[in-house]
Amino acid sequence: MRDVAIIGCGMTKFGELWKKSIRDIFVEAGLKAIDDAGVENIDSMYVGSMTSGLFVEQEHISAIMADYLGIAGIPAVRIESACASGGLALRQGFIEVTSGMNDIVLVGGVEKMTDGADATYALASAADQEYEVYNGITFPGLYAMIARAHMHRYGTTRKQLALVAVKNHKNGASNPNAQFQRETTIDGVINATMVADPLTLMDCSPVSDGAACVILCPLDQAKKYTDTPVKILASCAATDNIALHQRDDVTILKAVKLSGESAFKQAGISPGDIDVAEVHDCFTIAEICAIEDLGFVAKGKGGEFTEKGETALDGKIPINTSGGLKSKGHPVGATGIAQVIEIVEQLRGNAGKRQVKNAKVGLTQNMGGSGASSVVHIFRVV
Amino acid sequence: MRDVAIIGCGMTKFGELWKKSIRDIFVEAGLKAIDDAGVENIDSMYVGSMTSGLFVEQEHISAIMADYLGIAGIPAVRIESACASGGLALRQGFIEVTSGMNDIVLVGGVEKMTDGADATYALASAADQEYEVYNGITFPGLYAMIARAHMHRYGTTRKQLALVAVKNHKNGASNPNAQFQRETTIDGVINATMVADPLTLMDCSPVSDGAACVILCPLDQAKKYTDTPVKILASCAATDNIALHQRDDVTILKAVKLSGESAFKQAGISPGDIDVAEVHDCFTIAEICAIEDLGFVAKGKGGEFTEKGETALDGKIPINTSGGLKSKGHPVGATGIAQVIEIVEQLRGNAGKRQVKNAKVGLTQNMGGSGASSVVHIFRVV
Repeated sequence: MRDVAIIGCGMTKFGELWKKSIRDIFVEAGLKAIDDAGVENIDSMYVGSMTSGLFVEQEHISAIMADYLGIAGIPAVRIESACASGGLALRQGFIEVTSGMNDIVLVGGVEKMTDGADATYALASAADQEYEVYNGITFPGLYAMIARAHMHRYGTTRKQLALVAVKNHKNGASNPNAQFQRETTIDGVINATMVADPLTLMDCSPVSDGAACVILCPLDQAKKYTDTPVKILASCAATDNIALHQRDDVTILKAVKLSGESAFKQAGISPGDIDVAEVHDCFTIAEICAIEDLGFVAKGKGGEFTEKGETALDGKIPINTSGGLKSKGHPVGATGIAQVIEIVEQLRGNAGKRQVKNAKVGLTQNMGGSGASSVVHIFRVV
Repeated sequence: MRDVAIIGCGMTKFGELWKKSIRDIFVEAGLKAIDDAGVENIDSMYVGSMTSGLFVEQEHISAIMADYLGIAGIPAVRIESACASGGLALRQGFIEVTSGMNDIVLVGGVEKMTDGADATYALASAADQEYEVYNGITFPGLYAMIARAHMHRYGTTRKQLALVAVKNHKNGASNPNAQFQRETTIDGVINATMVADPLTLMDCSPVSDGAACVILCPLDQAKKYTDTPVKILASCAATDNIALHQRDDVTILKAVKLSGESAFKQAGISPGDIDVAEVHDCFTIAEICAIEDLGFVAKGKGGEFTEKGETALDGKIPINTSGGLKSKGHPVGATGIAQVIEIVEQLRGNAGKRQVKNAKVGLTQNMGGSGASSVVHIFRVV
């Protein structure tokens, strides 16, 4: 198995991109990544997208995107695992390069959520249609149940949940690609419109359009293209029961735990070695569960850890320096790749006001549904 | 890169499976494949499905299927490239095993088309939404234009198109898993309800439910599980312009040509070495184009070749011995895997009345949309 590096990145601004279609935004991100890497050809391509069928009545987007990037002919495949589609697309690209089958692989993610379908209805297709959605629950409700259980079991407070959003908006305020480049306050979160008690609108990631792409190649060819290749140290995925009612303990995201443990083992490092991480904060409670289940803090202590500022830019382990899904935006299929781009920029030392000092090793954790899919990548600049 | 073998197969009957949900049929096929292979664990899983979101409002089906197969925890990813989803899922499984990342990989495909959405509307999401579908064309119309051009350019006749359906129904009549286990006649095809001139209902593959799964492992471990492992000699994919109006010549399916040429090169053999093939006959004209673009017969001669009986069970190169999409049924995501199962059964000598004598090397060709995606596999029994 060959070592694999990321040699180029490109993304659109995330937000309500009314004037651009799904193919426009993917091509914009793809061309930026190709320019950034300086490659002259692409051997193969993966596109992560959750539900382009329900959102814009367009499946088969891998072939369309290859066509509109001007590279029709190459193998191009779409990957879907709900909100983990982007991260899992990267894993497929990693496997293809590591196998030796192809060298230069473009991996992207895209979602156009502001056209067409009702977003809550379309997103609900990531939950258990027969046992959850049919009975009326949607994602804010599922995560609200996880939040309630976490508060009850571990004493996590309403304020601690709000502080996740406050931190992420503070980071997002200095990210030019973020959907919401503005700060918020504890009161601003708690007093926002109630969505599913205890989660208000400001505990929830938004509906967004956007695309993000990276270029992979074998590590031993990477220096031809860039002075700062970023090596993929680990690429691991896991699944869990789809419906909350089937899980032993809804406060533990087992797929996050499994994918994290496998990734640390593959990379030969431990959570304490990570300098910066992007985790899947689709709701504020999700970030708290993720940092616990990845092992950055003991189970049940994520709220307290956040309140102490340990996940802030100058904390023990800076989390979601990009602004996270909460502030940067969450165009579902693009999210997993945008997380990777933030880590690559941090490891390259290009993160500007959001730069974590001496960041050498970074992690991304991307999740599908209420945690039935999770994928973890670990990166080191070489 | 390690050699890869298929060690087990399982599929449902194809048809209108009103009493079974999408998860029921996938689990049925998956358990049959696991039993057939005799494996005790699965390391990783791929599920090909085109548009489970539009058909049954359920995305994220890889996690659901792992859960309902009782193997939640493992990595599980859905692959989508329209009607080529199944074949491309196999290619991802092949790449994973060849890379050395995992050993025992389940690859399946599924579609539940008789519940919910209007099938023509859902299937149209595989065409170019902005330039084709918006203007009112659907797949029968696209393939009718290809048929008209083929008839005009090469003199292909209405009768020759009908003979594809007649042959495939004859084969399907002895396939216990086929949706339509009955024969038809030239008049039966030509006089059926007109769908898109010159294609009648009997030139079109049907709307179907179904699932199909295979188990892969490294070739050097395969004899532990079966006396008749089937080696994957080649696994190659390609793309083409998504919309017909962008192609130089609509009678040539360029992605089929490219994926076929790559596959023959990878396998180190030529079209004349293939003993039996399953090709993507979503419409009768598609089979004629496919056998030409794969090199089984010269361009423009596919109709004549069919009329001479050269693609029949006792012909020069038996095509679609399973009954093809036309008679076996076409549950979109499952089709690419069901094609592979027919070839595995032929190479194992288990095809009963449909058995091709001395079949040693087989090929499958699975296509997405009006040919913007194509994937070709070549197999040999070892």
